[in-house]
Amino acid sequence: MKKIKVKSSKHDYTVWAGKGALGMAGKVLKSLAFQGKVFVLTQKKVARHHLPALRGSLAAAGYKPEVFEVPDGEKAKSMGTLAAVYSRLLAKGFERRDMLLALGGGVAGDLGGYAASTYLRGIRFVNAGTTLLAQVDSSIGGKTGVNLAEGKNLAGTFYPPHAVLSDIDVLKTLPEPELRASYAEVVKYGVIRDVSLFRLLERETESALLRNPAVLEEVVVRSASIKAAVVSRDEFETRGERMILNYGHTFGHGFEKNARYRMFHGDAVSLGMACAARLAVRMKMLDPFAELRQLAVLRKLGLPVLLDAKRFQSAAIMKAMMHDKKKRAGKLRFVLPENIGSVTVRQDVPLSRVRSILREMGAGR
Amino acid sequence: MKKIKVKSSKHDYTVWAGKGALGMAGKVLKSLAFQGKVFVLTQKKVARHHLPALRGSLAAAGYKPEVFEVPDGEKAKSMGTLAAVYSRLLAKGFERRDMLLALGGGVAGDLGGYAASTYLRGIRFVNAGTTLLAQVDSSIGGKTGVNLAEGKNLAGTFYPPHAVLSDIDVLKTLPEPELRASYAEVVKYGVIRDVSLFRLLERETESALLRNPAVLEEVVVRSASIKAAVVSRDEFETRGERMILNYGHTFGHGFEKNARYRMFHGDAVSLGMACAARLAVRMKMLDPFAELRQLAVLRKLGLPVLLDAKRFQSAAIMKAMMHDKKKRAGKLRFVLPENIGSVTVRQDVPLSRVRSILREMGAGR
Repeated sequence: MKKIKVKSSKHDYTVWAGKGALGMAGKVLKSLAFQGKVFVLTQKKVARHHLPALRGSLAAAGYKPEVFEVPDGEKAKSMGTLAAVYSRLLAKGFERRDMLLALGGGVAGDLGGYAASTYLRGIRFVNAGTTLLAQVDSSIGGKTGVNLAEGKNLAGTFYPPHAVLSDIDVLKTLPEPELRASYAEVVKYGVIRDVSLFRLLERETESALLRNPAVLEEVVVRSASIKAAVVSRDEFETRGERMILNYGHTFGHGFEKNARYRMFHGDAVSLGMACAARLAVRMKMLDPFAELRQLAVLRKLGLPVLLDAKRFQSAAIMKAMMHDKKKRAGKLRFVLPENIGSVTVRQDVPLSRVRSILREMGAGR
Repeated sequence: MKKIKVKSSKHDYTVWAGKGALGMAGKVLKSLAFQGKVFVLTQKKVARHHLPALRGSLAAAGYKPEVFEVPDGEKAKSMGTLAAVYSRLLAKGFERRDMLLALGGGVAGDLGGYAASTYLRGIRFVNAGTTLLAQVDSSIGGKTGVNLAEGKNLAGTFYPPHAVLSDIDVLKTLPEPELRASYAEVVKYGVIRDVSLFRLLERETESALLRNPAVLEEVVVRSASIKAAVVSRDEFETRGERMILNYGHTFGHGFEKNARYRMFHGDAVSLGMACAARLAVRMKMLDPFAELRQLAVLRKLGLPVLLDAKRFQSAAIMKAMMHDKKKRAGKLRFVLPENIGSVTVRQDVPLSRVRSILREMGAGR
């Protein structure tokens, strides 16, 4: 079990990453001297696979959780589900000293974190991510959110969890397409900050990356460590550093919106990184060989690197990108690679150049 | 103009209290080096009286605010109004670097603060309270909130404003019953922390307290300074110190619920302080003469100090109190005076004793 420390203005916390982390939940809560009640917010499929291990661990430490299942899928991240969570918390007498533990993917973590941060102005929160994406990214750093009719994560808070549990064993039950898509974020960490993680991705076979527990553990620990280091220094995305985590995401959000979110987030990020690298090459910031290395790793993982003109239209993507919540003073900000392991943030890219990159990568008009 | 500093884990801020503070809004924003857009969330009646002064000041500094009016009254503090605020912010292209400025009483401040803290995970927030209650209490300390069907302020955040503007001039237009009720919180500050503020209340005539600008300014500045000092040391209500601000509120929330919120918050707090002092005397913690001094000040201000048996029933009040969000491990916590200027927190008061105090103060069965 690896312990990764994260700093926050409110309180520091630990990411417990490794095999059997869920079975340690009870001990982790005890180590926090936690004596309140536990509200487990989870999803149907996740609960079937992983709730017994969590429940057993909590019971052994003397905690009897109240379990609340939300529907699978992004639709559950709504103001409506949130109201239902509040109601159950109230009906079961949860107080400010109690805890909400999210067991599931990004939906459970984002919604659960938002509920925990706002119920009675904030109760304790533990995030147990059961997807690779949650473990390497969304469960660390305190971002919570719900979707509005107008778009994803438009309401949210920064609220540091009291602990993060990342159990490598649970990744076994993840469907392959989901696991594969999540690797886009791992490639991202390699490109923005960690050339040796990138080399690990280049070196290992696709099957080792997807299913070998030792490789998976290294991938999770290294990725989580980068995320932890970045958010420890720039908790509220005010210093620019956290912005580098958005590599591939400015384009990516545009693709997701254009596809009405009917695609994996990871696939959108993969396409976004392919476009960003292309843009960096065109701007003479990046050696074309580095672009090729990234392309090769993405393709080995079966991740998309070209836009299908039937599915993606540059005009619609441009429009969607202009609504990005990270744009500043109406200008798009791009994280662009200078090398494998190093990126920079630019907000001086002409829109005409962005559009031509989209066309070059295969988008329709 | 008095500048009162408040510390917060996120950023420190200043309360600008005095005559003409609204007319300084533009300068204050400039002093924060703020260059974004301003969304003014206000209420109908408030806008009629005070929006022109604010707008003029903002315009003189080059800001052109977008104005959004919510209905008057507590009902506006709902998830529904919140959704409407988000929609307008999105429709008008508000970004993370922009600002929401709440102009109004507690409803505008609480709802506006909540919206500001959650829209795009937090935009800048300025709180310009136009009621005495907002100026001495709710606009300082970063508590935000909306009501749920189950009760008041059940969803909320801790979110420090970037500035607080407390214009004494605006109190001129406050209806007398509201001004009077707000004084309950001023009496509270005297009893919990500031014997010389309490002596000022004893010394001045009722009319000077209600309408003399110099007295009002001293009352606001002294009260705001106490609130600022307390929340600077205990931002998240974790160290117990902030709890003392709840003097009169444990009982008071019970009365408000029992009356279905059809009473002034200040009247409930006045009744609550009368009950808490009585309880403290019965527990031999407080000299009966100190209880009488508090009683005399409350009565001079026309604040209620006895429960009407037709309106308040002890069983219903007990039940409502048991749902207080500050109760801990199922136990009620009372802030009880030991003297004028000093209180202590007790959670060992037997429920039977609480019930008998309610009956003694006039409540029905």
